[in-house]
Amino acid sequence: MGYEPIWLKQAPLPAGAEHPASIAEAVELELSVLRSLSEAFVWSYLVTEALPEEGYEVLVGEGKADILGGSYAGVLYGIFDAERQLLLTDTVVSVSERPASPLRMLNHWDNADGSIERGYSGLSFFFRDGVLSVNDRTFAYARLCASVGINASVINNVNVFKDATWLITDRYLPVLRKLAECFGAYGIKLYLCVNFAASIEVGGLASADPLEPEVAEFWKKTVAHIYEVIPDFGGFLVKADSEGRPGPYTYGRTQADGANMLAKALAPFGGKLIWRCFVYNCSQDWRDVTTDRACAAYDTFRPLDGAFDENVILQVKNGPVDFQVGEPVSPLFCGMKNTNLMLEVQAAQEYTGQQKHVCYLIPMWKDVLRFHTCAYEKADRVSDIVCGAHRPGGNCGIAAVINTGDDDNWTGADLAAANWYGFGRLCWKPQLSAEEIASEWAGLTFGTDSAVRKILVKVLLASYGIYEKYTAPLGIGWMCNPNNHYGPNVDGYEYDRWGTYHRSSCKAIGVDRTGTGTGYSHQYPEALAAKFDNPETTPMAHMLFFHRLPYTYVLPNGKTVIQHIYDTHFEGVEELMDLIESVVTVQGLIPEKEYTRIMERFAMQLASAKEWRDRINTYYCRMSGIGDAKHRKIYAVSEEDLTYPEA
Amino acid sequence: MGYEPIWLKQAPLPAGAEHPASIAEAVELELSVLRSLSEAFVWSYLVTEALPEEGYEVLVGEGKADILGGSYAGVLYGIFDAERQLLLTDTVVSVSERPASPLRMLNHWDNADGSIERGYSGLSFFFRDGVLSVNDRTFAYARLCASVGINASVINNVNVFKDATWLITDRYLPVLRKLAECFGAYGIKLYLCVNFAASIEVGGLASADPLEPEVAEFWKKTVAHIYEVIPDFGGFLVKADSEGRPGPYTYGRTQADGANMLAKALAPFGGKLIWRCFVYNCSQDWRDVTTDRACAAYDTFRPLDGAFDENVILQVKNGPVDFQVGEPVSPLFCGMKNTNLMLEVQAAQEYTGQQKHVCYLIPMWKDVLRFHTCAYEKADRVSDIVCGAHRPGGNCGIAAVINTGDDDNWTGADLAAANWYGFGRLCWKPQLSAEEIASEWAGLTFGTDSAVRKILVKVLLASYGIYEKYTAPLGIGWMCNPNNHYGPNVDGYEYDRWGTYHRSSCKAIGVDRTGTGTGYSHQYPEALAAKFDNPETTPMAHMLFFHRLPYTYVLPNGKTVIQHIYDTHFEGVEELMDLIESVVTVQGLIPEKEYTRIMERFAMQLASAKEWRDRINTYYCRMSGIGDAKHRKIYAVSEEDLTYPEA
Repeated sequence: MGYEPIWLKQAPLPAGAEHPASIAEAVELELSVLRSLSEAFVWSYLVTEALPEEGYEVLVGEGKADILGGSYAGVLYGIFDAERQLLLTDTVVSVSERPASPLRMLNHWDNADGSIERGYSGLSFFFRDGVLSVNDRTFAYARLCASVGINASVINNVNVFKDATWLITDRYLPVLRKLAECFGAYGIKLYLCVNFAASIEVGGLASADPLEPEVAEFWKKTVAHIYEVIPDFGGFLVKADSEGRPGPYTYGRTQADGANMLAKALAPFGGKLIWRCFVYNCSQDWRDVTTDRACAAYDTFRPLDGAFDENVILQVKNGPVDFQVGEPVSPLFCGMKNTNLMLEVQAAQEYTGQQKHVCYLIPMWKDVLRFHTCAYEKADRVSDIVCGAHRPGGNCGIAAVINTGDDDNWTGADLAAANWYGFGRLCWKPQLSAEEIASEWAGLTFGTDSAVRKILVKVLLASYGIYEKYTAPLGIGWMCNPNNHYGPNVDGYEYDRWGTYHRSSCKAIGVDRTGTGTGYSHQYPEALAAKFDNPETTPMAHMLFFHRLPYTYVLPNGKTVIQHIYDTHFEGVEELMDLIESVVTVQGLIPEKEYTRIMERFAMQLASAKEWRDRINTYYCRMSGIGDAKHRKIYAVSEEDLTYPEA
Repeated sequence: MGYEPIWLKQAPLPAGAEHPASIAEAVELELSVLRSLSEAFVWSYLVTEALPEEGYEVLVGEGKADILGGSYAGVLYGIFDAERQLLLTDTVVSVSERPASPLRMLNHWDNADGSIERGYSGLSFFFRDGVLSVNDRTFAYARLCASVGINASVINNVNVFKDATWLITDRYLPVLRKLAECFGAYGIKLYLCVNFAASIEVGGLASADPLEPEVAEFWKKTVAHIYEVIPDFGGFLVKADSEGRPGPYTYGRTQADGANMLAKALAPFGGKLIWRCFVYNCSQDWRDVTTDRACAAYDTFRPLDGAFDENVILQVKNGPVDFQVGEPVSPLFCGMKNTNLMLEVQAAQEYTGQQKHVCYLIPMWKDVLRFHTCAYEKADRVSDIVCGAHRPGGNCGIAAVINTGDDDNWTGADLAAANWYGFGRLCWKPQLSAEEIASEWAGLTFGTDSAVRKILVKVLLASYGIYEKYTAPLGIGWMCNPNNHYGPNVDGYEYDRWGTYHRSSCKAIGVDRTGTGTGYSHQYPEALAAKFDNPETTPMAHMLFFHRLPYTYVLPNGKTVIQHIYDTHFEGVEELMDLIESVVTVQGLIPEKEYTRIMERFAMQLASAKEWRDRINTYYCRMSGIGDAKHRKIYAVSEEDLTYPEA
């Protein structure tokens, strides 16, 4: 399979160009691209300590433009900025930029065998059958990342299985060095996920107890050797004590004990230890209505606030559960003031349509980033916290779990590339609007023809809301099939061990997570707790996440819960059909290959959306016995079972 | 892995005995076993045309016993009868026997790769990695079969995939000949499942159209060659036009066209063509409440009654759907008076606990066999029909889908062997009671110690009723997990394409299959249709199979539907616990290995039974809003959702 340059298609590298062996070479190479895009300017660049390390300025004068960077990486980012300006506006203006988020990271869930956990875009382009490769595609990947400011990449699955456990050994280090050099030429640091039990599986020890000196010694030696081979290695990402993965709990140690032990091995080399907060009981009994998975991360990590070393970063999923539509922001962002934090979002659309559904996630991520944590008097947004407003050591940032695979277009769905592009842009500059980002991406990918661009921007901006409408209005998630997480299945997880329930009865729906329920709402600061405790002040998008409400409860929008469920599910499908029709109007203006692929995905999305609409509406119509006030088609078995609200 | 002689453990072959090369040798060998069991008699045998071919007489005189058979097979059956008598009663009395059912057949769903579809007892002992073997175990299998009168075996899956398509070719015929010789020594005919599209896949033709002369020619040549190699080959079993399998429909031909074409190839050699009636639409839309899978087999085959050749036998599953608990008897047994029929039951416990649950199926099969079809004035039971009362050509019988695998004890669960044993006995003599059969099996397998035998008989006899109570009282089946068909999942198939729905709402449950519903009940003769159309005369076990009833409907037993659901689910678990406790009382009297295995299965069964009880009760409590009159533990989310019936 080949690969497409997607949003860089209008900025091709010179034919026959060699891969840059250093970032200085990459700058020269990219400058040649810039020159080919515009002869109206004489282009030059300068690395200067006057600017922050990754910052840049584009200084445009009469017939000339200088790109200043705090480092070669800064210069590179400046060149890409100028390329973007030229492609979108045909000219360049002066700008001064520095990245908001110190770490702008991708997390790949690639397995060494070549499969990708929650990947919907083909197989891994890093791994195949246990072998790691560095090739043309790897360089193309690095260039795409750099063009949107991504500066860190974790190439293997957080669930470290089999061969991947050996990445930290000489079996893989020589080729990892080549990969790190490729990444380094584009300002990207290589990170690896490690198996917490590697001291046993690789080291031959009997233990992985973080307080056992020989375990610490194993990691010290292992890390020292990694840095010997890869001097600019970034560090580790660890999923421990979660979903069957090993961790410090096995030895009666805390999460901090585990993280700090690894961090101490990395510290001498400037390495970072990123530790996921995705720790919960995945063997819950569905009969137990008191245990609430949403509480788990905060309950686990809040007591450890301040106990982590400076080079430890806790990576927190945007919501308290797992990338569901309609989750509130994780309360860990409010409660860990003495700990370095990083936000984890998911560009891989595990629960948002698996790249069969268009689902532009920037609006959702922006909602997370601008959420007021109420934890500080000023600068209390999630974006402030993960960009280091209160902890300026640079050990913070944003990570996206991404599923780029070996499909020609990298992301399976052409439109899904907007999430990759947008993630980078948003990390750099959170104040960019979702529309600005969509417009940039559409213009770069499909040209600045205003009809196409306008429609694609419309499609992207509408997509999340539409997906939410036909899948999870009011914040009830997880109504999907077990394991593959696709498609509607109202009770898919209802009687299972994963702690994710809607608990619908014939009278009511939702989980009471207020102070008088599971108590989850009280993990937030008082102002937020009060807001979430009251259904009248709870945002509609999270309503049934926080409250168990009768179907007849009247929501702030004046509709009953059941009518809102019906309406949103019907509207979602109707709005989707409108979107699809609008794309049909620009057939011929989009290249045929891309148009065909987009339409194929739309066909799958529409079929799936109808299935969501009909199953959810039918389930709740049968369950509640309340008919649709508008008498649309719902598959109740018999009309006699139903009562209808007054019109 | 080894294998155990299970119910033949007290009748071992002489040490070092060679495998019999013919049925005459098998008779001599088995006679030596008989002699070793009792020196009180001088044993001799005689083959005589005075008896029906498979019939026998044991004639006991003073110090001598003669075994007469209508053939060597008859003698063999007589010897096994005498062995059974000796082992169970320490003596022998004269008997005269002939089999009720002409064909007494096992259907194995073994794939050529060694896997077994719906197998719960290890891998295939016929196939492994595409290779078919004949070895000690094959002979042991044949002897076990012969000891209970089984005279036909289909060794490969009805879904004929991959290598199995080539069984009818020289790739496999030499070893199949060895297998047929092994079987033949024990009076068993070898049958094969064939792929209806073999003319394409193996024959290299472009078509499998049964009316295409070159297709018929392919089969004629293929069959002639099979009989050249295996002169006593039995014939074919075919699953066509079902669940994605190829068939005559592809070419616009009828099921009769397909079957007769194959039958004509087999006829010159006395071969039989067994054609499954399991044809239905497996891509149904759950929204469509008018299409009823239960109607499919009758709708398909009834119009073809009389159109099949004499050596075609239609193989009909016991119920209209698929081996569910609580299904009524298939109306095809009532409506195909001019066609040879064979009953198909399932010893492999696909839907009856997968050998983790004790589920003695003889009572269920007996219910089927003694069902009055109302199709004839006399001899109108299913047993009459499949034993040839109205079609004496010998082309009829009973088949059991079985899952014997390479587990030491053949059937995974020790107690599941009672279904294999019992199937053979029941085919031979349908009037044997379930208790007699259980008692024979328990005595042969675990000795005649009265305490053990009494308890095992009690366990077996109670098991089906208990399983029905906690899984599918009132005849609602299919509340299991998709694909693997294990464990409770109320909505597992409710919104799927398989045509198997319960259609529960907050008011009612069940599918209306009466004359005013899907019309299924009118596939039966008038007397039965009238009975099934009226819930007051419908047997409780089929109540919700035929009727959609409000939860508050009062059943013939005086309970409401919802209360009956609660009561049966609680009772099922309680009765199971009692059974388990009763087996504990005979610990030490059962060999430790078997006892441990039985208890391990009981532990799995009990955990699963509790899950069934709690999920089903919870689902219907939440759904109906009606509490348990006895206030037992059900996991409704909140008491406020419930109303309770008057005490």
